[in-house]
Amino acid sequence: MTRTVIESATKTVVIGFDEPFCVIGERINPTGRKKLAAELEAGDFSTVERDALEQVACGAMVLDVNAGVVYNSNPDPNETEPPLMRRMIELVQGLVDVPLCIDSSVPGALEAGLEAAGGRPLLNSVTGEEDRLELVLPLVKKYNVPVVAISNDDTGISEDPDVRFEVAKKIVERAADFGIPAHDIVVDPLVMPVGAMASAGQQVFALVRRLRAELGVNTTCGASNISFGLPNRHGVNAAFLPMAIGAGMTSAIMNPVRAVEMEAIRAANLLMNHDPNGGAWIRLAKVLDAVKEGASFAEASRAATASTGGRRGGRRARA
Amino acid sequence: MTRTVIESATKTVVIGFDEPFCVIGERINPTGRKKLAAELEAGDFSTVERDALEQVACGAMVLDVNAGVVYNSNPDPNETEPPLMRRMIELVQGLVDVPLCIDSSVPGALEAGLEAAGGRPLLNSVTGEEDRLELVLPLVKKYNVPVVAISNDDTGISEDPDVRFEVAKKIVERAADFGIPAHDIVVDPLVMPVGAMASAGQQVFALVRRLRAELGVNTTCGASNISFGLPNRHGVNAAFLPMAIGAGMTSAIMNPVRAVEMEAIRAANLLMNHDPNGGAWIRLAKVLDAVKEGASFAEASRAATASTGGRRGGRRARA
Repeated sequence: MTRTVIESATKTVVIGFDEPFCVIGERINPTGRKKLAAELEAGDFSTVERDALEQVACGAMVLDVNAGVVYNSNPDPNETEPPLMRRMIELVQGLVDVPLCIDSSVPGALEAGLEAAGGRPLLNSVTGEEDRLELVLPLVKKYNVPVVAISNDDTGISEDPDVRFEVAKKIVERAADFGIPAHDIVVDPLVMPVGAMASAGQQVFALVRRLRAELGVNTTCGASNISFGLPNRHGVNAAFLPMAIGAGMTSAIMNPVRAVEMEAIRAANLLMNHDPNGGAWIRLAKVLDAVKEGASFAEASRAATASTGGRRGGRRARA
Repeated sequence: MTRTVIESATKTVVIGFDEPFCVIGERINPTGRKKLAAELEAGDFSTVERDALEQVACGAMVLDVNAGVVYNSNPDPNETEPPLMRRMIELVQGLVDVPLCIDSSVPGALEAGLEAAGGRPLLNSVTGEEDRLELVLPLVKKYNVPVVAISNDDTGISEDPDVRFEVAKKIVERAADFGIPAHDIVVDPLVMPVGAMASAGQQVFALVRRLRAELGVNTTCGASNISFGLPNRHGVNAAFLPMAIGAGMTSAIMNPVRAVEMEAIRAANLLMNHDPNGGAWIRLAKVLDAVKEGASFAEASRAATASTGGRRGGRRARA
C-alpha cells in the first residue's frame, strides 16, 4: 500500500491509491504573473493571502508555494528567493491549516522553506538531472519529507514514454540509495499538450499504470498542460482528470479555483468509491447551484465552507 | 482487432477499440414518454422526426428506435409493435442516413425492424435468459447483424460483477454455437447507480477491461444510469463517460442532445487519439461558443452541421 504522508502542524493529507485525489493548489507562484511578482518585490502579500484562502475554500488539500520572482532591484534568486520563500510559508501557514508544497529550483529556497514549514511538507522537486539528484535528495533525507520527482534528465524531456519511465525509475533507485522509500516519491510523468502530440493522453495513462504497477509510486502532474493551445481548454482538462484518475493518477498540481475541473475531480472520486456516501459530491452540487445563480466558484465555496464549520480546512472559517 | 460493423443503406459505422466512441442516440423511445406514446397512437410522428434530426446533428452516430408503446385501443404489443416499428424505421431512415439500432423486447417487432431497415442494423437486445437466447440469436444469425447482449439472466441482474461477466461469457459462447462471431456481440455489463452502490463505477471499469481482454468484445451501456438519484447528474455522467472510455468502453446508448455529456465524449476521443488533428474537438468548441451566446445545443449543432456540408450525417444538410 503506497501512502505518501504530507502534514502541516495540525493536519495530515495522505496521497494514495485508495484515497480521494489530492488537489495541490498551484496559484501561489509568481512565475508568469507579472503583477504578483511586482507586488512581492514591493512587500505586498495581499494576492498571496487571497490565493491561499480561495484555493483552500475551493478544495485544495495542499498548497504549493513558489517564490520564484526575479527582483528588479536584485537579479540573483539565490539571494532573494530564500528569504521570500520563508516569509511566504510563514504567511500562508498562519492563514490556512493545509500542508504545503515547497516549490523552487533554488536549493537555498528549498531549505529555507523546509526550515519554515511546520509538519511534513512536500518538496517540489527533484529531476533525473545529476546535479539536482545530488542537491535535492540529501535535503529530502535530512528533513524526512516526500518529494515530487519529474521525469526529465540531463538530456531534457523525452517524447518517448519509455525513456520517461526509465528516468523515474532511476530517481526512485537513487533515492533508495539515500534511504528514501518509494512511497515518499511522487512521480510527475510529464504531461505533453495533446494538441501538439496526439498520443499525449494515452502516454500519460499508460505511464501512470506502469509507475503504479512496477514502481509502486504515487503520481502527480501539471494537469492543465494537456490542453495547451486548444480551444475550450477546461473541457479537455475536465475529461483528462477523470481519465488520469481512472488510470491511477493520485494527485495533480492545478488551479482549484476552476469549477469545471473541481467538478470533474469530485465526480471521479465518487466513481472511484473514494467519496463515502457521496457527501463531497452533494456539498459541491450545492456550491454549483450558487454558481448558477451568479456567485463565483470561490465565493460560493467559501460560503459553503463557513456554513459547514470549515471541513475543508480554512482556519478562519473554523474560528 | 474487434470491429463491430453497423450500416445503413449508405453509411458505415464501426465500433472498435481504435475508433471514436460510438454514440447511439436513445431518444426515439416512447417508454416513459407519455406524450410521445399518445402521439404515436394518434399517428403523429413529428416528435420522432425532430428527435431523429436533432440527435444526428448533435453527434449521434447510430439511432436507437424503440416502438414499445402500449396502445389504449389495443393492449397487445405483439400485434401493435411490429407495424409501428416498421413505420418508425422507414420514417427515420428517410430523414437521416445513420445506421439504426432496432430496440424491442417483442420478437415480432425485432423481425419487422430487421426487414424494414436498410444495411446492417444493430439489434437491441439479447440477454442471458434462455428464452431470449433461443428467440433472438436465430434472428441475429438469419439477418447477419450485430447484437447488444445484456448481462442479466433468468436469475435477474446480479450485483456481483463476476456473475455479470459469466452471463456475458455464456451469451458469447451460445452465439458461437449459432455461428455468430464475438465481434458481432456488443456487451452491456449493466451500469448500477453509484448513489445506491458505491462500487458501481469501479465495477463497470473492471468489467469493461475484462470483457475486452478475455472475450475480445465491444461494450455499451445505458450511461445515465450511473447518476440516478444524485444531484447534478450531468456532472457525474460527464466524468463517468471519459473514465469508461479510458477503461475501454466503446459505445453508449445515451441522449446526445446534452452538451455536457457530448463535450466529455469528444474530449475523451481527443485524449484517446481518436480525433485526428482535433478536428471534431475544434468544431465542438465553436458549437459551445454559440451555446454560450444563447443557442440550444441542438440548434447550434444543426447550424454547424449545415455549414460544414453535413459531415455528421444529416441527409437534409447534405442535400
